[in-house]
Amino acid sequence: MDNFEFFNSTRILFGQGQIAALAQQVPADAKVLIVYGGGSIKKNGVFDQVTAALGNRQWLEFAGIEANPHYETCVEAVKLARREQVDFLLAVGGGSVIDATKFIAAAASHEGDPWEIIATFGGAVTGALPVGCVLTLAATGSEMNQTSVITRASSHDKLFFNSDFVRPVFSILDPATTCSLPVRQVANGVVDSMVHVLEQYVTYPTNAKVQDRFAEGLLATIIEEGPKALSDPDNLEVRANLMWSATMALNGLLATGVPGDWASHLIGQELTALHGLDHGQTLAIMMPAIWTYKFEQKKEKLVQYGQRVWHIQETDQDLIARQAIEKTRAFFEQMGVATRLSAYGLDAAVIPQVVAKLEEHQFVALGEHGDITPSDAAKILELAL
Amino acid sequence: MDNFEFFNSTRILFGQGQIAALAQQVPADAKVLIVYGGGSIKKNGVFDQVTAALGNRQWLEFAGIEANPHYETCVEAVKLARREQVDFLLAVGGGSVIDATKFIAAAASHEGDPWEIIATFGGAVTGALPVGCVLTLAATGSEMNQTSVITRASSHDKLFFNSDFVRPVFSILDPATTCSLPVRQVANGVVDSMVHVLEQYVTYPTNAKVQDRFAEGLLATIIEEGPKALSDPDNLEVRANLMWSATMALNGLLATGVPGDWASHLIGQELTALHGLDHGQTLAIMMPAIWTYKFEQKKEKLVQYGQRVWHIQETDQDLIARQAIEKTRAFFEQMGVATRLSAYGLDAAVIPQVVAKLEEHQFVALGEHGDITPSDAAKILELAL
Repeated sequence: MDNFEFFNSTRILFGQGQIAALAQQVPADAKVLIVYGGGSIKKNGVFDQVTAALGNRQWLEFAGIEANPHYETCVEAVKLARREQVDFLLAVGGGSVIDATKFIAAAASHEGDPWEIIATFGGAVTGALPVGCVLTLAATGSEMNQTSVITRASSHDKLFFNSDFVRPVFSILDPATTCSLPVRQVANGVVDSMVHVLEQYVTYPTNAKVQDRFAEGLLATIIEEGPKALSDPDNLEVRANLMWSATMALNGLLATGVPGDWASHLIGQELTALHGLDHGQTLAIMMPAIWTYKFEQKKEKLVQYGQRVWHIQETDQDLIARQAIEKTRAFFEQMGVATRLSAYGLDAAVIPQVVAKLEEHQFVALGEHGDITPSDAAKILELAL
Repeated sequence: MDNFEFFNSTRILFGQGQIAALAQQVPADAKVLIVYGGGSIKKNGVFDQVTAALGNRQWLEFAGIEANPHYETCVEAVKLARREQVDFLLAVGGGSVIDATKFIAAAASHEGDPWEIIATFGGAVTGALPVGCVLTLAATGSEMNQTSVITRASSHDKLFFNSDFVRPVFSILDPATTCSLPVRQVANGVVDSMVHVLEQYVTYPTNAKVQDRFAEGLLATIIEEGPKALSDPDNLEVRANLMWSATMALNGLLATGVPGDWASHLIGQELTALHGLDHGQTLAIMMPAIWTYKFEQKKEKLVQYGQRVWHIQETDQDLIARQAIEKTRAFFEQMGVATRLSAYGLDAAVIPQVVAKLEEHQFVALGEHGDITPSDAAKILELAL
């Protein structure tokens, strides 16, 4: 096991009816900016629950955060937060809304060009407004970590930043809020949370037995419950298990003492920024292709994954590893998320575009060994056509 | 899954050489009281590493914390901390030293009789000196939680208290510090951490799939690595996996959304307070007896445990559950921790003593159903003779 540091101070309030706990979690004298997306929370009753729980506190709202939240939109919210002198940000939505709120929180406290926050991967952040979350989609894990991913639409840049200052003070996870989600978002969320686990697990062994077992436990749960969320959408127990899986998948715990890959995320981000694919779609495309390209390096963990998670009974190591890749691809497809570029109308023309963006962003040494160059990425994308 | 709240703000620094990180973690202007036990840290180099990392900070030391730390000893440390106006407490040791330091931290900030802290189970705590830990024994999980167990030797009372104020700010977990431990402490630590998992797992099902998988992952790791810590004591990877297992076993994560039993702990505590048995020994005695007494209520989880952790291939549910109990007992015995009162020279005379203490402490409704009365405890102890 590698040496590590772990810290996570987000308070989690989990379960049906927990939105009412906002009354205790938001400071009584706060002036709150509620940040949300397209307005579904006004139709499904979540917004009403939130404002009821806020009681007599002053609050105002900023709507219209997009999937893959736009820098340009966030900057407008920063202006509102400053003008109105709000002192607490409440994200009500999924990972995009939470990521946007984290950026707004940091930018509201940042002198100078807010793009510096992203250009420095968060290094320029020296403070932030406090952030609380009401999560309505099991997917990104943003509700319990210090990461945010922001897209500058004008330049097709989708980039992340990290800062302990934007870690949510609390997050409320009520699985009932996820029951009315469209199928596509549910399926993308299942793929996203599963890939978060796999990015931290299918690398090379470090004899980190607890972390491996935890990863395998999350994978088993997601594989068991994911399809049920589609076939039995009102099953609250299924939603609860998926919600907690997604949060645990990316709260820092799985990363302790092990290497991380993240090439699927970093190459996939370019596909989203360039062609608007959903985040989950890009992961479903990239991960099987990267595993195929890096087969020898990843074989030992692929075999462990195949045996412990998919219960593959073969004895030949190569066969087990290849079946593990195919079972993963089949699971993504079963969830309705296609795993080939061609299924989204993209062809080899995308390859030089992605390569150029990776070079521009200096993502030139990706993967757990830091050995995936843009020309490797081109070969990986060929495998994903 | 039941509703839950989860919060854990302790920063973990894990791995060989991490004691040096004290230089960054302890405030530069702190006056530090180093709290420790019998002096083994002065022989194995840990004390020297600690003081080297503290650099120019003012520090003093309080030695002599016992296993099952005594209230009377802690009160002396409180006097020293007040007299010397220390403003940071550094526990260097295992769970006993950390528990004592938590109590000292709370009592130093407490007006009035310090026993009130324990008599109110922590409710009387309104503040505490900050606590940091250098852990030297994988066992109790105290390094990442808000609980402390204190023994008043004069009255044979061993009781716990909880307070968020005494949660360690940071804990340093260097597995190398555990290699020189006596076999008995290593074995007790393995039993203790395993029982912590089982107290939160072998209850009744709530369809909390992630929590169950995490519990099973910790159990598998402890069962795999525990015997190696005895046969191959200098194996740092084994020590690292056991150390992280013990911390994860009782940091609040397994407790989320599930019932807890804890009868083995609460009845076992009385055996320690009355007759000086090691904590791990009392758990090894009580848990198989409680499972036998509560067989029908626990059967469903015993079966799951038997199948997933011990890979029992039988089909009869009763047989699987009984084998799970026997395999657990055999594991404790394999670790050198006897599972019968008679092995420690105790007989039925202990039963009325324990019953009287349980009544005195109002522990009259134990277990995950709150239905274990002192007269049930008497029958359980009969099964443990």
